[in-house]
Amino acid sequence: MTKHASVSLKAALLSPRSIALVGATSDVSKAASRPLSYLKRGGYAGRVYPVNKSRATVMGEAAWPSLTALPERPDHVFIMTPTESVADIIDECGRLSVPVATILAGGFGDGGPQGTARERDLVERARRAGVRLLGPNSLGLINNGERVVLTANAALSEPELPKGSIFVASQSGSLIGALASRGKARGMGFSSLVSVGNEADLSIGEVCALTLADSAVDGYLLFLEAIRHADRLREFAEGAARQGKPVAAYLLGRSEEARELALSHTGALAGDADVAGAFLASCGIARVETFEALLECQPLLRRLKPPAAHRPRRSVGVVTTTGGGGAMIVDQLAMRAISVAPPSQDTLQSLTKRGIKAGGGRLVDLTLAGARYDVMKSTLEVMLAAPEFDMVVVVVGSSARFQPETTVSPIIDVGKTGVPLAAFVVPDAPDALARLTAAGIPNFRTPEACADAIAAGLLRELPAPSPAGRTATPSGPSRQLDELEGYRLFDELRIARPECVVITGDDVGPAAAMLRFPVAAKVLSTDIAHKSDVGGVQLNLADRPALERGVRTIRQAVKEHEPHARTDRILVQPMMRGLGEALIGYRRDPHVGPIVMVASGGVLAELYRDRSIRMAPVDLETARKMIAEVRGLQPLTGYRGAEKGDLKALADAVVALSSLAIRPDLKVVEAEINPLLVLPQGQGAIALDALVRVSQS
Amino acid sequence: MTKHASVSLKAALLSPRSIALVGATSDVSKAASRPLSYLKRGGYAGRVYPVNKSRATVMGEAAWPSLTALPERPDHVFIMTPTESVADIIDECGRLSVPVATILAGGFGDGGPQGTARERDLVERARRAGVRLLGPNSLGLINNGERVVLTANAALSEPELPKGSIFVASQSGSLIGALASRGKARGMGFSSLVSVGNEADLSIGEVCALTLADSAVDGYLLFLEAIRHADRLREFAEGAARQGKPVAAYLLGRSEEARELALSHTGALAGDADVAGAFLASCGIARVETFEALLECQPLLRRLKPPAAHRPRRSVGVVTTTGGGGAMIVDQLAMRAISVAPPSQDTLQSLTKRGIKAGGGRLVDLTLAGARYDVMKSTLEVMLAAPEFDMVVVVVGSSARFQPETTVSPIIDVGKTGVPLAAFVVPDAPDALARLTAAGIPNFRTPEACADAIAAGLLRELPAPSPAGRTATPSGPSRQLDELEGYRLFDELRIARPECVVITGDDVGPAAAMLRFPVAAKVLSTDIAHKSDVGGVQLNLADRPALERGVRTIRQAVKEHEPHARTDRILVQPMMRGLGEALIGYRRDPHVGPIVMVASGGVLAELYRDRSIRMAPVDLETARKMIAEVRGLQPLTGYRGAEKGDLKALADAVVALSSLAIRPDLKVVEAEINPLLVLPQGQGAIALDALVRVSQS
Repeated sequence: MTKHASVSLKAALLSPRSIALVGATSDVSKAASRPLSYLKRGGYAGRVYPVNKSRATVMGEAAWPSLTALPERPDHVFIMTPTESVADIIDECGRLSVPVATILAGGFGDGGPQGTARERDLVERARRAGVRLLGPNSLGLINNGERVVLTANAALSEPELPKGSIFVASQSGSLIGALASRGKARGMGFSSLVSVGNEADLSIGEVCALTLADSAVDGYLLFLEAIRHADRLREFAEGAARQGKPVAAYLLGRSEEARELALSHTGALAGDADVAGAFLASCGIARVETFEALLECQPLLRRLKPPAAHRPRRSVGVVTTTGGGGAMIVDQLAMRAISVAPPSQDTLQSLTKRGIKAGGGRLVDLTLAGARYDVMKSTLEVMLAAPEFDMVVVVVGSSARFQPETTVSPIIDVGKTGVPLAAFVVPDAPDALARLTAAGIPNFRTPEACADAIAAGLLRELPAPSPAGRTATPSGPSRQLDELEGYRLFDELRIARPECVVITGDDVGPAAAMLRFPVAAKVLSTDIAHKSDVGGVQLNLADRPALERGVRTIRQAVKEHEPHARTDRILVQPMMRGLGEALIGYRRDPHVGPIVMVASGGVLAELYRDRSIRMAPVDLETARKMIAEVRGLQPLTGYRGAEKGDLKALADAVVALSSLAIRPDLKVVEAEINPLLVLPQGQGAIALDALVRVSQS
Repeated sequence: MTKHASVSLKAALLSPRSIALVGATSDVSKAASRPLSYLKRGGYAGRVYPVNKSRATVMGEAAWPSLTALPERPDHVFIMTPTESVADIIDECGRLSVPVATILAGGFGDGGPQGTARERDLVERARRAGVRLLGPNSLGLINNGERVVLTANAALSEPELPKGSIFVASQSGSLIGALASRGKARGMGFSSLVSVGNEADLSIGEVCALTLADSAVDGYLLFLEAIRHADRLREFAEGAARQGKPVAAYLLGRSEEARELALSHTGALAGDADVAGAFLASCGIARVETFEALLECQPLLRRLKPPAAHRPRRSVGVVTTTGGGGAMIVDQLAMRAISVAPPSQDTLQSLTKRGIKAGGGRLVDLTLAGARYDVMKSTLEVMLAAPEFDMVVVVVGSSARFQPETTVSPIIDVGKTGVPLAAFVVPDAPDALARLTAAGIPNFRTPEACADAIAAGLLRELPAPSPAGRTATPSGPSRQLDELEGYRLFDELRIARPECVVITGDDVGPAAAMLRFPVAAKVLSTDIAHKSDVGGVQLNLADRPALERGVRTIRQAVKEHEPHARTDRILVQPMMRGLGEALIGYRRDPHVGPIVMVASGGVLAELYRDRSIRMAPVDLETARKMIAEVRGLQPLTGYRGAEKGDLKALADAVVALSSLAIRPDLKVVEAEINPLLVLPQGQGAIALDALVRVSQS
């Protein structure tokens, strides 16, 4: 066997000079027969070696009994044999120094506990052997620019796919076919499409990162079922941001039901969608909510570069030739908290000077006049120059169908300079859409996808810098701190908490002497996570006899609920009143790493899922944004004449709690303050409870 | 002039034997030149009379100087002259006994106060003259079955529109063009499309109702910017329900911004979108949230006839050939509170018996085997026969693109019997979609529209019967009752309220004697709507001296805030504690009529817009449903171990308040109870405040 000069991982994966197809067959009813013909049909210029131990030829081509028998070391091996045979073939790849192998078979991480063990073993072998893996459970990949159609799946082998600069990677293989065909129908061009399967070795982040320096790629589309290998995904996203190459993602699993499916489907333990969303946002990845927007959003994202600082961008100008169509966009944008701003007096004057009647109100409704080249061009120029708009949407009515060329030409002429402009085309007008796409102008077929992409683009920020000292999530055993230990942690973090006295016997004297009545008494025991649920809390104890009774009541109730729990220690603290309550939490999420959360206090916050989540740590400005995102905390802003709460202190507490992410010495896995009492402005915020878990490793 | 035999309104509007085009011109740059050629091109078989006072011919046809000069009375006059000239032409129509006129010009209800006055005058003249009006501000109409292309708008004149059975009516004219072209692209057939404009006379409901008995129409699509002529719309919807002809609506104005637009655009004062939604639901109209679903939903609605009783239908079975595609549908359905149920053991056994591997979990994922006719057909048959599903969605992967005929044929063969089946096609597969459409099988291009239409269809109920005695909304002046008068109304309605004593001077004796302390004191004055905002409420007054102080404090505070308000009367009632608070309200909405609302109490309910609205009156079962829809009331159901509240009493109060809709004798325009205190189960619910307005006419 000839050994070729070493090849980069990128080249071996995406542009292999030679490919071995293990398990290739002439039986056209089998998927394993396909790659050979797809590669041929696609015009692949490299060498292809069918490997089949029992056939001398496959599909009329000479076949080889094994990888070892090949005349050269292939750059890329595509393994299409059954699950059980894969491990041996990987060993063989290792002996031959094959740099990369793609594995079609499922039954690994996607196949229950046995499969998970099998996958672990596979990864271990590959690592030892120095072979990188794509999959298992991968449908393969297509490098459209270099005619590598390396897949056994008909959907991925879409013929005559337009060449282009968009790189697609998906955890769901079958969706790649849908993206390819839908993109093709709209004239969108792809560079490569990769089915990453279970990501046992090569993750979606690492695969995408291979092309960051590739000038033929200028944007990425990700179809995600779960966040896996978060660090690699973040690294890639940071690189993409540096290169100015937008990354857009569609994330499945906003519902409990879909998360459960992701588990059975690809073995991915999908976490909370809000957490995943916070992670993607922190990476500067634009998350779209509609499937079509995933395909349509790239040209717009390129035009809406994220601002360097925390600058809110939420103001859109709308130019329309159809009132109803314009109103649909306004409605859809408003539902996504993007407001359509009316033109300023200056802008209206500029329009008037050019002889354009804009009408009143939020829409610049040109009606039929908008079908005239000069009217549309002038209007767009004026609107794009107006400082009140972060971007302009043009809503095109029937003329897009009946005179596509004249209708889109002013939009193309104004838009070709890369200005933040998008078009929503109201009628069925494939020709107009195709012309806009060919000219690189963002264009949308539905008001929903248009507004979705605009919101994703305007709300996108640069990736938050990965703070030094942020450590990996500890995976070992952990233990719960008792409330007093929790308070000591808060002292370290400078989060205020009430004075406390611990009673160990029947004598409440020390507490009565040190604290102001009324007081609260709570069982102090690491055996109990939810004190209230077991009768472990007594509130509003007005005097010493009440406290004595309260302590007895607690011990009795807890003994009834939890006979084996220790109840000797009772924590006493003064009752405190504030303007409102918040819940703040910190957690090392197993998928994405440390996160911090703010919610309004009480049972309603949970019912409404009214909360804001970010990757931890956060700075003060971000903490303030988070607080503003929680509707239930609005009364603390002085809403409807209410007294203002100390939101600065609340934000400080969020910052402090989030800093646990860079305090590996404290070993905190999870910390929750519920409630954090918010006092009037200037008076602070006080943790009235502490639920903390620390790693024991 | 020959007078023809009388003609029905339906025939004159939609199938006129003769049409006069007033303002027709040969100047092809003008819209008024178009109807003549559109009618010709469309193959209209009736007589067309261009009317132009200064031309002998128009577009080569003989023209007439006036309507009066025509050789016959036309069935339908299309007025394309400027705003100012319309009234005289309507007078002329009246003299000639023209049954119906369509008015293109705007500048009426859509043109500010002056336009509104002009519209009122126009309607008055038309009524006197016996002429029915379509518009003003109407782009015209198309009767596709009978080749009447009566429009000056290019978008509406879509050539070669497939004939069919869907009737389209829209408040936005330009959207009709979009619906026509998008429907045409998908092979959907239309019977007529009508631009109803400002609905100054003929309303969308009355226009649609004309075709209820028409066997060529079997479903309706409405594009709404506001609810106008609600009674007519309801009457039509009730008729459509009786005929089994589904009505679907897309309603603009979910945002404040879009509601403001509707006003400027068509002069419609759009109300609260939630109120409009409640109205549409009560009419049995399926409301879709995505534009594409409006077009796609009809075949599905026909298969999902609303159940006769209040039966919840929220369970969908999903068969898929692509895991990722199936998961998108599950996710989208779950976000709309529609759950995808896993097949039962019986169903799984039936599948196994037929040799079908369904996998585990919620999806019946056939993978590649689903491309086989027999596998797909058997699976769909088993699933459709399974009692656990209200309907079945089949998610079709790449085979829909590569073998459209063989892929859709099992779906068509199973679906042709009208079973509740829908298809979501994942790749771009226009051929498969067209085949499904031609066979009448519900089919969807995006997961969002598919889930949207399914939710609209499953949640649709039969129109609530219009209760006898429900009266029109009084429009005259109204006055506010004071709290005590409000309580007397509640006594009449059998809504519980606390005992009250009124103090008029400084002597709190009577109150102290009759009521249990602590008490609440409130200023009793019709001059004040929001007592708390002006310091008019004192709570938790523990004893007689506290009450005396409280009364003084109230008088002082109110005098400061509202120097002219009467403060002599103070209402005293005992403080009461319950498990929770609700807000319930009744209002005669100016657009849709009487509505009733339930929300959780407090400021958060408003922040979260967490409320349930129905047309009033409601029965007990509906009131219970409403309560279940309010998340903030969930703690009262015993959520997380909390004590259960008396939700029966809350529901009774909702029913009682809603019965104001059939009590014209009480003349109530608006009534709000905030808070209604909910006591523990079996102990009732008590109104702690009363804000009531009654009509003075």
